Amino acid sequence: MRKLINDPHDVVKEALEGLAAAHPGVLRVSQSPRYVYRADAPVAGKVVLISGGGSGHEPMHTGLVGLGMLDAACPGEVFTSPTPDQVLAATRSVYGGNGALLIVKNYAGDVMNFEMAADMARGEWMEVDVVVIDDDVATGQTDSGQGRRGMATTVLAEKICGAAAELGMPLHKVASICRKVAGNGRSMGVALSSCTVPARGAPTFDLLPGEMELGIGIHGERGRRRAELRPAREVVDLLAESILDDLPFTAGSRVLAFVNGMGGTPRLELYIVYRELVRVCRDKGLLIARNLVGPYVTSLEMAGCSLTLLQLDDELEHLWDQPV
Amino acid sequence: MRKLINDPHDVVKEALEGLAAAHPGVLRVSQSPRYVYRADAPVAGKVVLISGGGSGHEPMHTGLVGLGMLDAACPGEVFTSPTPDQVLAATRSVYGGNGALLIVKNYAGDVMNFEMAADMARGEWMEVDVVVIDDDVATGQTDSGQGRRGMATTVLAEKICGAAAELGMPLHKVASICRKVAGNGRSMGVALSSCTVPARGAPTFDLLPGEMELGIGIHGERGRRRAELRPAREVVDLLAESILDDLPFTAGSRVLAFVNGMGGTPRLELYIVYRELVRVCRDKGLLIARNLVGPYVTSLEMAGCSLTLLQLDDELEHLWDQPV
Repeated sequence: MRKLINDPHDVVKEALEGLAAAHPGVLRVSQSPRYVYRADAPVAGKVVLISGGGSGHEPMHTGLVGLGMLDAACPGEVFTSPTPDQVLAATRSVYGGNGALLIVKNYAGDVMNFEMAADMARGEWMEVDVVVIDDDVATGQTDSGQGRRGMATTVLAEKICGAAAELGMPLHKVASICRKVAGNGRSMGVALSSCTVPARGAPTFDLLPGEMELGIGIHGERGRRRAELRPAREVVDLLAESILDDLPFTAGSRVLAFVNGMGGTPRLELYIVYRELVRVCRDKGLLIARNLVGPYVTSLEMAGCSLTLLQLDDELEHLWDQPV
Repeated sequence: MRKLINDPHDVVKEALEGLAAAHPGVLRVSQSPRYVYRADAPVAGKVVLISGGGSGHEPMHTGLVGLGMLDAACPGEVFTSPTPDQVLAATRSVYGGNGALLIVKNYAGDVMNFEMAADMARGEWMEVDVVVIDDDVATGQTDSGQGRRGMATTVLAEKICGAAAELGMPLHKVASICRKVAGNGRSMGVALSSCTVPARGAPTFDLLPGEMELGIGIHGERGRRRAELRPAREVVDLLAESILDDLPFTAGSRVLAFVNGMGGTPRLELYIVYRELVRVCRDKGLLIARNLVGPYVTSLEMAGCSLTLLQLDDELEHLWDQPV
């Protein structure tokens, strides 16, 4: 393994200790049960936002805790769902008396555990809503019965809903904005290499140099198909086509275009990918009103990227522009 | 090659097109000669900061152009110095009538070309000073005659001097602050994997899984020695010891502790490394007054990190805290 770690089983615990030491003005860490929360929590009267999921996708979610973003994040072990206890404890710790929104990526374990935590919190008279993000068009057609996986639209939802909560909107409104983001955003990824979960010590899958896996999941789940690696322009054409097929993006639509790095792909390449995405959007008559380029939803050191297009309106644009 | 690119020879050009398309409110790109400059340049009366060097280290330098940071950055091809013409054109384009500071990493080609550009600019009656950053303690003992290489202290200097210039300080003052940062900052890196320059198509060097190269340069130059990969705590001990030996950091010193990712190392690991660096500093009686954790001076997709300690005083802390 090419990893700067101590004991592979202490990776999440020790990384959170480092995170807490680095950002004491912004966040605090509870280790048992494990969650990260805003240093100024609870913010009385504010709807609070809680998310989480397996670790290994940093900065999502633990790096997104702070003003105008999440109130708390619950990290599981690497690529493993957090438990309902973690989510309940986090919710209790940041609850400001005016409702909590749990934002969950669509994976069976995550959804089950967050729903269970929501029920428990309601049993303690907290007002809780849950929104599931399911933006991965690579998985729309599977027969797993679980629908599309949750991908990079999640960070857009967290940013936009974080702004809505900060502006004092009530829970039903923040949740409805979150559902709009989930409904308007679609993503698809490509991997050029695998990644290695520390506790496992071997790559999750094998991919030769010169191959790519189209439609990869953020945990290295198999994609739609494996193919010979093509120039960036052709890869972007393939990904964008699948995304555009899935939503009624029409000429004249305003979109947020998001090129997300999977961890091991340099920024030089991400900006080349963005250049190609600009071309595709221009050819389709889509107006890129906002953009984001960088590694936000990673899969450890996986090489690759995902593209996300989010259809915007005045409300979403306004919230996107709020400070964090 | 596992790269999302088109023609390997167009990587820098196309990435800059993507960068310009993504951040039109912040920066502009000139392709011939090639440089990136602030969208609001020239800022009349302000000392302007110009840096640059080979591409492949993003976000340094092209991603650091903007308010409170650089006025212009001159990217060469990947791991290749920019030409004097680029630097001169960038200086002309952002010059605000009140002096220009060129910040250069200590590599023979970079220093020669920036010095030449400075002379040409002075010939056009611009006031120009040049500061060389040479913070890599792994190279202090070499007999190459060029002294220590420039590493991650460079981004700290660009941030701190950018603030000084924004506050209206004159050129001699901004340059003297830059020399103080260069004098007070020391770095050392470790690689766990090599990286592949696109136009070359093969890794710069070979490193087996389970090996590390201590004292690596940001272009993959050989380090002090190759060794078996050790737990993060031992790697940090080795790096920090070399850094602490090189400067009179004494118990009670305030420092900025910077864990820089080389590109291919996940944030989970960088925060584990930071955790270990906190331990070392505590044991030595150093007070970490500020910190920075993330990939700022990368070497394409190289796995590894560098540690930087910068001795702080009130002036440097105040400038570090200015907005960007």
